[in-house]
Amino acid sequence: MLLYDLVNARRAHFSPNGWRVRMALLHKGISFEVRDVLFGDVPGIHPGGDKLTIPTIEHEGKFVTDSWAIVQYLDTRFPDTPRLMAQGVEGRVLRFFQHWAQSTIQGGIARLILKDLYDRLDPADQAYFRASREKMYKKTLEELQAGREERVDAFRKSLQPMRLALAEGPYICGEQPGYADYLAFGGFMWARISSPFAVLAEDDVVYAWRERCLDLYGGAARGELPA
Amino acid sequence: MLLYDLVNARRAHFSPNGWRVRMALLHKGISFEVRDVLFGDVPGIHPGGDKLTIPTIEHEGKFVTDSWAIVQYLDTRFPDTPRLMAQGVEGRVLRFFQHWAQSTIQGGIARLILKDLYDRLDPADQAYFRASREKMYKKTLEELQAGREERVDAFRKSLQPMRLALAEGPYICGEQPGYADYLAFGGFMWARISSPFAVLAEDDVVYAWRERCLDLYGGAARGELPA
Repeated sequence: MLLYDLVNARRAHFSPNGWRVRMALLHKGISFEVRDVLFGDVPGIHPGGDKLTIPTIEHEGKFVTDSWAIVQYLDTRFPDTPRLMAQGVEGRVLRFFQHWAQSTIQGGIARLILKDLYDRLDPADQAYFRASREKMYKKTLEELQAGREERVDAFRKSLQPMRLALAEGPYICGEQPGYADYLAFGGFMWARISSPFAVLAEDDVVYAWRERCLDLYGGAARGELPA
Repeated sequence: MLLYDLVNARRAHFSPNGWRVRMALLHKGISFEVRDVLFGDVPGIHPGGDKLTIPTIEHEGKFVTDSWAIVQYLDTRFPDTPRLMAQGVEGRVLRFFQHWAQSTIQGGIARLILKDLYDRLDPADQAYFRASREKMYKKTLEELQAGREERVDAFRKSLQPMRLALAEGPYICGEQPGYADYLAFGGFMWARISSPFAVLAEDDVVYAWRERCLDLYGGAARGELPA
């Protein structure tokens, strides 16, 4: 099992979706090796690789791309490991959670740290990253991140549904972490590895939950040094 | 099966949690009768009724209060009907959805329509409602609703995760509606019955989804005339 994952200039793994898949593999106890790539390396992973995104896994000669598809594949191909995604209606509610994590957590964090992330990229990736993200956000990276001290409270407030869930148990999924936790955690790892900016206040239950996630699986995520 | 549900001055049912339970009963095909109550009637529903909230159901001599507990009860006591709540991890993700619907949909809608809702209450309920809600929001009802024309866009934007989910199927739960749909729909019924203010734009996929929910079960919710 190979996991292709993005690295920045100091070879730290910062991809939010990479962290989702990494935590899923750890949760299932599937051993894997990581292949570090830059954005510019992705099309060369294999012939036809221009359709790949990161993370991608390579397993028994097969390439699977997109974190949601990868976790579905892991659930199917490793039926003896703990399932992360339910089928049917319950799976759809988890899918809503992914949309929430993507738009609220990652969308919010992008506006707090994306220039910092850019600064830490390998120089070979910077031009691509700036052009694609400035097109996506219709702003320069500098404009996107400007005024974050005034905006961080609104971001923290937007996490309120997560706070209500965490008032009922140590993880979003209850007594033990599940894929909803990893979906959310990926966004926070993206911030942690890419920027010194404090997206969470230390007295927030979301901060305490993030600490618990950092401790999982022998502190696997804590081993990736923060920016 | 009796459902105790709140009515306003024109005897229309406006409780968001009442609509959640009503859709759950319809989904399961459980026949029920509705007992209309005012806020002021609730403590008199039965001895010890000061601990009840609305909705409450009465079934085989037992009173069950709180919409989440009621739907859990229905799943347990009517095992031959379609389940609405999964157990374990999947149930926790649905619980997160309830927190999201509560804080984002209902929290957002409150700031758009609560004075209109108050105006339409039975006069006997108005003093209680104003005092309790003004204490909760630390604002007068007039202040809470003021400027809604300028704020409605931010509310609509906050529904983005739902829009992403609805891009993948007609309901949040997929091809068929499930309890996540009813959790969200309750908030929109609260607005529809209590205020003429358009909380959704007509070209929004969330608007089209609401129309689909209104059509369910012979148009049960559409039968409740809007404000």
